Amino acid sequence: MNALEYAQQNKARFTEELIDLVRIPSISTTPAHRPDIQRAAEWIAGQLKAIGFETRLYETPGHPLVYAEWLAAGPDAPTVLIYGHYDVQPVEPLSEWLTPPFEPTVRDGDLFARGASDDKGQVFAHIKSAQALLETEGKLPVNLKFIIEGEEENGSPNLDPFILSHTDLLAADVVLISDTSSRSLEQPSIVYALRGMCYMELEVRGPRRDLHSGSYGGAVHNPAQALCEIVARLHDGNGTVTVPGFYDAVRPLDEDERAELNKAPYTEDELKRETGVPAAWGEAEYRLHERIGARPTLEVNGLVGGWTGHGAKTVLPAKALAKISCRLVADQKPQAIYELVKAYVAQITPPAVTSEVRLLHTGSSAITDRHSPVMEAAMAAYEEAWGRRPIFMREGGSIPVVALMQDVLHAPVVLMGFGLPDDGAHAPNEKLTLECFYRGIATSISFLKRLNA
Amino acid sequence: MNALEYAQQNKARFTEELIDLVRIPSISTTPAHRPDIQRAAEWIAGQLKAIGFETRLYETPGHPLVYAEWLAAGPDAPTVLIYGHYDVQPVEPLSEWLTPPFEPTVRDGDLFARGASDDKGQVFAHIKSAQALLETEGKLPVNLKFIIEGEEENGSPNLDPFILSHTDLLAADVVLISDTSSRSLEQPSIVYALRGMCYMELEVRGPRRDLHSGSYGGAVHNPAQALCEIVARLHDGNGTVTVPGFYDAVRPLDEDERAELNKAPYTEDELKRETGVPAAWGEAEYRLHERIGARPTLEVNGLVGGWTGHGAKTVLPAKALAKISCRLVADQKPQAIYELVKAYVAQITPPAVTSEVRLLHTGSSAITDRHSPVMEAAMAAYEEAWGRRPIFMREGGSIPVVALMQDVLHAPVVLMGFGLPDDGAHAPNEKLTLECFYRGIATSISFLKRLNA
Repeated sequence: MNALEYAQQNKARFTEELIDLVRIPSISTTPAHRPDIQRAAEWIAGQLKAIGFETRLYETPGHPLVYAEWLAAGPDAPTVLIYGHYDVQPVEPLSEWLTPPFEPTVRDGDLFARGASDDKGQVFAHIKSAQALLETEGKLPVNLKFIIEGEEENGSPNLDPFILSHTDLLAADVVLISDTSSRSLEQPSIVYALRGMCYMELEVRGPRRDLHSGSYGGAVHNPAQALCEIVARLHDGNGTVTVPGFYDAVRPLDEDERAELNKAPYTEDELKRETGVPAAWGEAEYRLHERIGARPTLEVNGLVGGWTGHGAKTVLPAKALAKISCRLVADQKPQAIYELVKAYVAQITPPAVTSEVRLLHTGSSAITDRHSPVMEAAMAAYEEAWGRRPIFMREGGSIPVVALMQDVLHAPVVLMGFGLPDDGAHAPNEKLTLECFYRGIATSISFLKRLNA
Repeated sequence: MNALEYAQQNKARFTEELIDLVRIPSISTTPAHRPDIQRAAEWIAGQLKAIGFETRLYETPGHPLVYAEWLAAGPDAPTVLIYGHYDVQPVEPLSEWLTPPFEPTVRDGDLFARGASDDKGQVFAHIKSAQALLETEGKLPVNLKFIIEGEEENGSPNLDPFILSHTDLLAADVVLISDTSSRSLEQPSIVYALRGMCYMELEVRGPRRDLHSGSYGGAVHNPAQALCEIVARLHDGNGTVTVPGFYDAVRPLDEDERAELNKAPYTEDELKRETGVPAAWGEAEYRLHERIGARPTLEVNGLVGGWTGHGAKTVLPAKALAKISCRLVADQKPQAIYELVKAYVAQITPPAVTSEVRLLHTGSSAITDRHSPVMEAAMAAYEEAWGRRPIFMREGGSIPVVALMQDVLHAPVVLMGFGLPDDGAHAPNEKLTLECFYRGIATSISFLKRLNA
């Protein structure tokens, strides 16, 4: 019996084990759940130990990190690092759950429970993959490491420092993360690019104090108005960012990549239905999914200045502030983008006010070569387990740990999502389609074997 | 002995009486001072009764209104209504007062006390004027009414309803208000125009909920950005409001009026020193004091939308809001301006968002004909009492009661300020220059006599 057959025969048992795991209310943002967090970490570590991994809980200022390794594949075999998290989102509003979030229930082939999809079910698929390989073959085709954190839903405050101070421990040839979704059960997909981030604050200042708009209005440039004038000049009428040099480093889309991305089109009707906007917006020469996944943006995340309370106050505000962030694509550098925005804002700031652009934080974009051997292995593994070749997708959001691992460990990151778009990861009635769980185990087995074929 | 000589001889006594009045801590915004408010109202009423007026305290949901009348000048004599207030501003920060705010102290000819200039000393000058006339001539040259409120520093919540429901009681040919300042002791001035107000809220909406800027950024028009784009189009590069029709009703300045206003110029250096701005701003074809006094404006009083807290949140906000107010001049109608702004915003709102302009409140502008007989009388009275002909000024702010009285009582309003710009009306160490008080009494006597000369 090979590993795939073993996994097939043990579906029911693996599902029961997953149910035990999702029964633990390991909500990381709520101090009252600290014992549950500890229990979940120990449960995961116990599973990994039982199948033959060296395991250790690393304490942090927050919740513990589960680390496990099996390194008996030898120095010539590649090393794979799998990242996941055992903590879950809060469950509010509780009244909207059809069955209680920590009383796992299977309905129509879906396992309903908080954390089923995000991320316990996905990370557990890899553990079961390793178990199936070890039980049937006595060894793994690769050296395998797990790093499973308990603070992902709380912003991972202790993960970056841990990675930066444990680069030898975590050293790997491939990083594998399953914390995303496939396009559908019928059409698997692989996300190969994530956008980066450059988050800034733009402050415009005029008079040293708020002024009476009657006494000075008409002779003093209003900083809230001036802020709007500056912000309005950051895009042209096409939605293109006007900051000189902004697009210089952008890795262009070639026709091959555009064709690939267009296998997962995103229509204006879908956008309108999902968001309620009256129309789509943005760079006319790019399709909607390209604007979101493959083009950088400049967003106003917040505006504040002067009187913002109920009713009227006739103040001419001393200052106004905008939170502005750019989503970046390969190969834009966040610090360079900050410098460009800063220089352009300085250039267009009207002479009767002053302005300052402050950098709040940055994150690198991430991209994995679609044609690399590791990506080919992932494609083939999906094709074997799902019966259909996956399509490639870019995601508009940022997963900071992906860029960090890519940059610090110098390893390609494969995002092997076993969720589905309708899983409701942060919503009531979160579910994992069990077929995805089983295919996930099979995909993982196939992928690990192909890495050392 | 005539009234002016009487006032001259009784300076010391009148000053002592004013000191008794300003000793009362009639702070209208502080409930604990309610008994002091009552005491101040009764003290004023007692003064008016003692010199021969019929007086009455009108109770309101807030503090009482002092009403007094002397109507024995006969039906052919004009009737004058004097408005003032007996309540005062809070005194904080108390530590900055050189002498306690309610222990009146005379230093170098200035009377230091909260309320000395704003407005007890100014309204008291008119009471002493009436007294001087009655004591020396046995009658007044005009029918005279006083309405003195106790809530001016608290937004006069009960004054408008009282005026609207007592138009017969308050009917007058001239309204006289002394609650402003002259330009200097050497150069008296009369404010003949105040700006009106049209206060609005502009809300821009896009998606029905806040979106993740990674998942939708680039394909959805950001409402905070769209708000900035709309606001930026409300002025041109010259600071001129671009709303079509905005200036249509503006009563133009002729060369005569511009020359008059230019007797009280306001320099860019003064503006920069007072406010700290790096440069002046606004319509290049108008002088600074014209921009503030004689031109309408459109100000952004507040901006709010999306994430406004500390740090970063990558939200694509569902909506953003601006508080926008126009200061209006004669003969602009607030409601008409609202309709114009609303129509223009609808026209320039980008197609991928929606917008709404809501009217919060309005106030009329006020203007008194500089060449009217009543203004001529005021000019002559100032010239007699101050030894110099006053100059005319426009004020950029709004005094809502002025427009209301002008509109409801159909009477010209004369703003006869006896304060000085450095009185510190709402600040620590408020003072009234006693010479202004004496000249105020003389100006009032002269003015009332000239109205029926």
